[in-house]
Amino acid sequence: MRLSELSERSGISTATIKYYLREGLLPPGERVSATQAEYGEGHLRRLRLVRALVQVGRLPIATAREVLAHVDDESLGRTIRLGAALWALPHGPEPDEQAPETAAARAEVDALLDRLGWTGAREIGELSPVYRSLVAGLATLARLGYPYESAQLEEHARLMHEVAVRDLDQMETCATRSQQVEMAVASAVLHEPLLASLRRLAQEEESARRYGY
Amino acid sequence: MRLSELSERSGISTATIKYYLREGLLPPGERVSATQAEYGEGHLRRLRLVRALVQVGRLPIATAREVLAHVDDESLGRTIRLGAALWALPHGPEPDEQAPETAAARAEVDALLDRLGWTGAREIGELSPVYRSLVAGLATLARLGYPYESAQLEEHARLMHEVAVRDLDQMETCATRSQQVEMAVASAVLHEPLLASLRRLAQEEESARRYGY
Repeated sequence: MRLSELSERSGISTATIKYYLREGLLPPGERVSATQAEYGEGHLRRLRLVRALVQVGRLPIATAREVLAHVDDESLGRTIRLGAALWALPHGPEPDEQAPETAAARAEVDALLDRLGWTGAREIGELSPVYRSLVAGLATLARLGYPYESAQLEEHARLMHEVAVRDLDQMETCATRSQQVEMAVASAVLHEPLLASLRRLAQEEESARRYGY
Repeated sequence: MRLSELSERSGISTATIKYYLREGLLPPGERVSATQAEYGEGHLRRLRLVRALVQVGRLPIATAREVLAHVDDESLGRTIRLGAALWALPHGPEPDEQAPETAAARAEVDALLDRLGWTGAREIGELSPVYRSLVAGLATLARLGYPYESAQLEEHARLMHEVAVRDLDQMETCATRSQQVEMAVASAVLHEPLLASLRRLAQEEESARRYGY
């Protein structure tokens, strides 16, 4: 399809599409003449993801470009490719190695992973910004005087693993690995706020059941 | 205790504590002389919550004041008091009634609540900004071309209900209702980012199990 049709079908203006092309967020179309290029369904799918990352996830352009580079990197193994794309998303703060709570928080995360039998996550360990942001988060909670009770943390982790199993089942319905990673990235950006809303709504429901209004 | 001790035990400077007092985030101490006031354990607990809301949750002072007013409102029923405190926290965007996807998203949330048997949440309905932000979120996903599959949404909701049951169990370990609502507010602000991290870490783990690295 031509640029005008790509714009119409995606609902994104031609000016914005040209901007995304210049910034390398969208691969160039196939040139058919000096002034025209041809775009395919892949471009439409990519535009949808760019819009989710930039407009809803509010990712800076450079960050979105890095995420997309990992999505497209066929040289990586599946877990590392998925990891690299998710790791390029914004994360919580890094652990403060000067803070006295950090060492205890790291030991707590490692003990949690051991209890859960999450050997994969344990092996990836410090390499993952997700692991590091969990360490930083637990240290902050301890410093604030709201320690994450280890039984509660473990139950939350088990329930989030059930969510993750369903996430990967859903991902596997995508035809290609590249599309699977795209879905994981979109889901991280789009579903996280909704999961938080579902938890709060479930709290309202559970409170109404236990105590009335 | 005197202001200096309150500062020492909370790790918050006397200047910041005076600012919180002026802004009504902290109730005044008991005046013992023209220049001195006496503070108790309740002030220490409240300071801890204020710091979590303002420093970690980055809530504007006016928003924090509103949340705390509901925490302290003994006139409300338990569910409404918990709800009011949580509802005063920042939420996602409101539903866009002009968007064609909004009516369908609202019908989807209602159908979900019916299938789940969440009669309490269904009855509170539109009154709750949590419900409204869920409607807005589903409409956005549909507009972006990433519809939240209804089976996936339902499984996520069921798992979040299990999280909520544990949240309320944990809350009930607090001695007073006011402390219970304080814990719910702190947990919403502090645990939501960690739950998102746990989900991403669980995805890494599940990916390593299924595909290696």
